[in-house]
Amino acid sequence: MTTLAFLGLGAMGDPMAAHLATYARAHGHRVLVWNRTAAKAGAHAATHGTHPATLEEAAAADVIFTCLPTSAEVDEVMHQMRPHLRPGATWVDCTSGHPDAATRQAAELAAHGVTFLDAPVSGGTVGAQQGRLTVMVGGDAAAMDAARPHLAFADKVVHVGGTGAGFAVKAVNNALLGVTLWATGEGLAVLGRAGVNLGAALDVINASSGRSNASENLIPQRVLTREFPPTFALGLLAKDAGIAVDLTQGVQGSAPVIAQVAALLRAAQHVVGPAEDHTAALKLIEAMNAKEIL
Amino acid sequence: MTTLAFLGLGAMGDPMAAHLATYARAHGHRVLVWNRTAAKAGAHAATHGTHPATLEEAAAADVIFTCLPTSAEVDEVMHQMRPHLRPGATWVDCTSGHPDAATRQAAELAAHGVTFLDAPVSGGTVGAQQGRLTVMVGGDAAAMDAARPHLAFADKVVHVGGTGAGFAVKAVNNALLGVTLWATGEGLAVLGRAGVNLGAALDVINASSGRSNASENLIPQRVLTREFPPTFALGLLAKDAGIAVDLTQGVQGSAPVIAQVAALLRAAQHVVGPAEDHTAALKLIEAMNAKEIL
Amino acid sequence: MTTLAFLGLGAMGDPMAAHLATYARAHGHRVLVWNRTAAKAGAHAATHGTHPATLEEAAAADVIFTCLPTSAEVDEVMHQMRPHLRPGATWVDCTSGHPDAATRQAAELAAHGVTFLDAPVSGGTVGAQQGRLTVMVGGDAAAMDAARPHLAFADKVVHVGGTGAGFAVKAVNNALLGVTLWATGEGLAVLGRAGVNLGAALDVINASSGRSNASENLIPQRVLTREFPPTFALGLLAKDAGIAVDLTQGVQGSAPVIAQVAALLRAAQHVVGPAEDHTAALKLIEAMNAKEIL
Amino acid sequence: MTTLAFLGLGAMGDPMAAHLATYARAHGHRVLVWNRTAAKAGAHAATHGTHPATLEEAAAADVIFTCLPTSAEVDEVMHQMRPHLRPGATWVDCTSGHPDAATRQAAELAAHGVTFLDAPVSGGTVGAQQGRLTVMVGGDAAAMDAARPHLAFADKVVHVGGTGAGFAVKAVNNALLGVTLWATGEGLAVLGRAGVNLGAALDVINASSGRSNASENLIPQRVLTREFPPTFALGLLAKDAGIAVDLTQGVQGSAPVIAQVAALLRAAQHVVGPAEDHTAALKLIEAMNAKEIL
Repeated sequence: MTTLAFLGLGAMGDPMAAHLATYARAHGHRVLVWNRTAAKAGAHAATHGTHPATLEEAAAADVIFTCLPTSAEVDEVMHQMRPHLRPGATWVDCTSGHPDAATRQAAELAAHGVTFLDAPVSGGTVGAQQGRLTVMVGGDAAAMDAARPHLAFADKVVHVGGTGAGFAVKAVNNALLGVTLWATGEGLAVLGRAGVNLGAALDVINASSGRSNASENLIPQRVLTREFPPTFALGLLAKDAGIAVDLTQGVQGSAPVIAQVAALLRAAQHVVGPAEDHTAALKLIEAMNAKEIL
Repeated sequence: MTTLAFLGLGAMGDPMAAHLATYARAHGHRVLVWNRTAAKAGAHAATHGTHPATLEEAAAADVIFTCLPTSAEVDEVMHQMRPHLRPGATWVDCTSGHPDAATRQAAELAAHGVTFLDAPVSGGTVGAQQGRLTVMVGGDAAAMDAARPHLAFADKVVHVGGTGAGFAVKAVNNALLGVTLWATGEGLAVLGRAGVNLGAALDVINASSGRSNASENLIPQRVLTREFPPTFALGLLAKDAGIAVDLTQGVQGSAPVIAQVAALLRAAQHVVGPAEDHTAALKLIEAMNAKEIL
Repeated sequence: MTTLAFLGLGAMGDPMAAHLATYARAHGHRVLVWNRTAAKAGAHAATHGTHPATLEEAAAADVIFTCLPTSAEVDEVMHQMRPHLRPGATWVDCTSGHPDAATRQAAELAAHGVTFLDAPVSGGTVGAQQGRLTVMVGGDAAAMDAARPHLAFADKVVHVGGTGAGFAVKAVNNALLGVTLWATGEGLAVLGRAGVNLGAALDVINASSGRSNASENLIPQRVLTREFPPTFALGLLAKDAGIAVDLTQGVQGSAPVIAQVAALLRAAQHVVGPAEDHTAALKLIEAMNAKEIL
Repeated sequence: MTTLAFLGLGAMGDPMAAHLATYARAHGHRVLVWNRTAAKAGAHAATHGTHPATLEEAAAADVIFTCLPTSAEVDEVMHQMRPHLRPGATWVDCTSGHPDAATRQAAELAAHGVTFLDAPVSGGTVGAQQGRLTVMVGGDAAAMDAARPHLAFADKVVHVGGTGAGFAVKAVNNALLGVTLWATGEGLAVLGRAGVNLGAALDVINASSGRSNASENLIPQRVLTREFPPTFALGLLAKDAGIAVDLTQGVQGSAPVIAQVAALLRAAQHVVGPAEDHTAALKLIEAMNAKEIL
């Protein structure tokens, strides 16, 4: 019997672990769950038939999934679990982590005979609930192929390069989310000052060459409605854009636009609040233009 | 019988005027065509049954369409045509023009009893050939409704505000095209330096939140293939992004990301060449990162 | 007897006209003064022996000085004065004006036989009071040489090019003021978050290669003291940086850093208030970093 | 007898160690010198009466100075010297190092009873030759006071905060150097395109509020002369601006202008070449504007 452990039952992790449970039931596997707030693990077990576990117990699993806020939290649980790891296991980190952390963590786990895959996901809470996430994987391709059947929460799994490459792609993707969100917000604020009908403008942009996921989905659904539903925190988007900056620095690349947007998102985090939805970054643009986007 | 005049038979205008001709034939209208290089008007007439005309003749039409490189060229033909305009006519300017020019031109035409609509289009040369362009219209809504049947090259016509609003939305759309193109290029150049597989990275981004028209269509089709087919000139994209900057200045708005990208596109125009395809702007990013995007 | 007219008795103009009065008295010239709020002209006359005048009277002067908030106000007075101008006169515009306006105004005045010089000043209110301003002049060099003796408020007069060049240099200078102010503010906010002693840091920077007028004078005197004395309004600095952006656009140049700072200063104008001292732009940086600079 | 060791005899270190030798002779101290290329140490000894030493010998000194390209080179020598360090010694690192490295290095040395001071210098090669450098010190203030007499190459020593604060201030200073250099270059390129006399423009700016060390010294002496003398490498300036970016990231600060300039300097490094003088960054601006600055 294969034992799978899932650590981190947040807005993404909870439904991901639920898909893991369904899959495990069908294949005779066992799913251990752990969460910093233990009550969430208990609730998950009651609802999905998973098994609450300590970090020590989870460390003995064949495949360990982590889905935590940042690489720092992964470091913490890894530190506690290291003495109890089972050689031959695979650690699949679905956190939106840091490429530098991946390199270090992979080396530490390798010393215990454990393979690390950085495997962040995209698709949001809706994708997690539907089990239709995209997973971008860095690390050993054969290890990814072996782990693939267990990625029950994914409908697209792509190997993008060596250790850290998954985190790198995720950071760049989220930085581009930040860029499109911010720049579209700028454009709408300026058009608003010019007296243009913003709903009509967005309608046109979404039929034209300037369209993006931000213009097609996020701004109509979250900004123009003034709802800003808190599904992905502004502080986490600022963190991810910051990882893209770190990545750029690490390879001595030049990305002035991503760098500028990362700085503006950090500013929005301080001005608007880190726990607000990431689309609330546009409230800073509104202040900068003395104009609401509606 | 209604007379329609179409001025400017470039990569966009030529197929647009062809759709006008088909429509006119079905409704018993007449289509005059004019082009700076007269041979193009003759060829259009031979192929599509339109009538080559002088500017003076075109000035007497009921509906005048212009589709020229910039508002400066529209000013030139308008200057020559003004004495010959017919009161009650409508001038539909499909140029990616300047909002300030629209205000001025509308006032000048109003003095001759002619209504000006700024009506730039999006959809590219493919959309023009298929007659499926999107038209964003600024000016009098009733005049737009009256002219709507003649917009035979469009499948979506949206009224976005008063005079100049159409040009404003077009400028912002193209600025956003520039932002998404440039920022995605930056991200890929950095990932390339980090040794990530760029095709796989783009595949993931296009299934994720950072996707845009640039990441889904332009970069895979034009950059990764190294083809950079010259359908929309870099110099014109830089001009359009510059109009978005002017617009921002005119309303005392703040759009730091659009401003930065407009400056970088202008730099690319000088470094790479104004006649190159707009996607060739990424060659400057490649130089800035000492890394090809492929 | 030569008649000199000075229009615009603001924080700069008032002491400039006072130096003109002293000079005129010594040379047997007459000084007319005009101000939108007439009481200021009366007070100036009472204190400095100048003569309050209507725009029509001022129009007949041999040399006309203007020192107004923007080129728009110069346009207004020029419109009223045009019918009354004296051929052979010289118009010296000390406003921080717009290069495009200079070209237009010079042409309009030339039609009346009047020579236009764009002649903005630097040195601040202290320099104006001491009569030690620097004047940067665009236009005809011989006309500048002829007017030079009358520039009693200046100790340095530099011919920088043709019509508009004076305004252009002034706009770039003030944009650089904005860049150095803003960037030094950013650096200090970050150092403050890192727990560094900011007074000591500034002391070191001012002995090192990163120093500027902003770091040596403005920030120690106005920001670290939290006084922000309102001598040069934030709204005017944002306007001047905007002129540098317009200038860049007009020559198809690429200045991404100036463009970004101009956008951020405009944002600060909206967030902090246009009438605040220009150094109060750093209050936006403080909000963006959740950290006071002190 | 006190033994002083100086490691790193580059363009800065060589004259610094010479001043150390003069001071040591007067006070009966001994100076050991080390350089990666041993011949330079031999030459220094021959000229200045210092003593070439191995890293093992240098490790036993009472005060160890390092002046190396980056913190990575300091790590290398520290790794080799660690077993031979003398408890009670002080390590004064004059490298333009990384604040994160300082924290780590200080902890490693503390374990051997050695105190680490980050003590980067400013003043350039001229300041080094004259023994008039400014030193910005992070770490224990009492240790700085004790080491102060040995800083024979300095005429200004400022304690700016705890461990890493010296490197942080140096990074911000050099980032500001980069900002002023780049932005002034942009302004001049645009003025050049507008036909303004650049020498006159710079003369005016240097009498006005936009002036900086870059406008007053670097650009007139190195750029307008087209000499670009290679005293401080572009690659090192890009590295330092990058440290300021890392610092900003580390404290979750927001510095969009510094971030943008750091990215542009990195681009210049790739386009113009890392070994060129830092002022040659303006050659990229020239390409971006199709205009030489002269």
